[in-house]
Amino acid sequence: MNEIDNINTVPDAILKLIQEFSKLPGIGKKTAQRLTYHLVRTNLEDALSLSESIMTVKNNIILCSECSNITQIDPCNICNNPIRDKTRICIVEEALDVLALERTGIFNGLYHVLHGVISPVNGVGPDDINIKKLIERIDSGNFSEIILAMNPNLEGEATSMYINQLLTGKNIDITRPARGIPIGSDIEYADEVTLGQAITGRQKF
Amino acid sequence: MNEIDNINTVPDAILKLIQEFSKLPGIGKKTAQRLTYHLVRTNLEDALSLSESIMTVKNNIILCSECSNITQIDPCNICNNPIRDKTRICIVEEALDVLALERTGIFNGLYHVLHGVISPVNGVGPDDINIKKLIERIDSGNFSEIILAMNPNLEGEATSMYINQLLTGKNIDITRPARGIPIGSDIEYADEVTLGQAITGRQKF
Repeated sequence: MNEIDNINTVPDAILKLIQEFSKLPGIGKKTAQRLTYHLVRTNLEDALSLSESIMTVKNNIILCSECSNITQIDPCNICNNPIRDKTRICIVEEALDVLALERTGIFNGLYHVLHGVISPVNGVGPDDINIKKLIERIDSGNFSEIILAMNPNLEGEATSMYINQLLTGKNIDITRPARGIPIGSDIEYADEVTLGQAITGRQKF
Repeated sequence: MNEIDNINTVPDAILKLIQEFSKLPGIGKKTAQRLTYHLVRTNLEDALSLSESIMTVKNNIILCSECSNITQIDPCNICNNPIRDKTRICIVEEALDVLALERTGIFNGLYHVLHGVISPVNGVGPDDINIKKLIERIDSGNFSEIILAMNPNLEGEATSMYINQLLTGKNIDITRPARGIPIGSDIEYADEVTLGQAITGRQKF
């Protein structure tokens, strides 16, 4: 932001908003400028609505005491829902993953949000993410299946393996989403690991 | 947003903020989700600061009565500045262009922001942008040079030509930024029009 800060011809309020937008993930300096100047031009209602929505989220969103998903009521709409299958838990890294899975409409069980993954490189150990509460929850309940839906990368795999170890001997099915070729893609361009796992995990037609 | 709206497991406050972010230019649904979930995790101060900065901009930013640039005081810092060259006006399409030009530190004159370009396709005529005030300003002042710094595209050229016509016979130098090969680029990959203009406008070494 130094380049812009040096320009004393730009109003402080503009510089400040550019700076605030720049703090958001994936928003660079140019995008922050564009968003700021857009809000200057936009009508007051839209700007007010954005400003208020941010504070509404900060003031009303809490973590569900059961699954740690984000929610406005506790327990959350999912844990609370009588028609959801209370014997299955799908473990995910982030609250955004719950959104993605809910959008499929396929899974009707409960969730558990870890809010992170085990990552020794970044100094994140098992105690730094929401694993202890998961084990307590599983031990105090009556679950038939735990789905490990972490991202298919090094850290996600490490976290899955760690949780899998903790759950062995508990007489619960441990599963994970199928790895394979994504819908709409091209076998020719699939990477070897994905294609290999797709062949290994081939299903009856 | 319909897909998300159908998911009754997502808190209303979250859906609303995703919707508000989606209204911003260049922010798609996925980005809006990411920004929203980022704000859930971020500390209260940062969110408050963003929310307040938006309202500060809306409540404090006005258009300069002389040059129509955005400002917190009227006349703006540029029109107000005693060391700026009051005999030169650089005409630009948008307030963001002023920011870009100020960053160069090369131009020391005044600006005039049109807030648009002449675009018959989009139904924007000369009276819909800030041209009338420009001519009044030039007629009532003592200017030696007008720089037409519109974007080098069809609409920018049309707007430049229109203003150039209005200013003929006024004994003022009408100039425009040099067209040529951008610094850091490759002659091999320059388009023909740009390269042609670069050769036509070649300068002494």
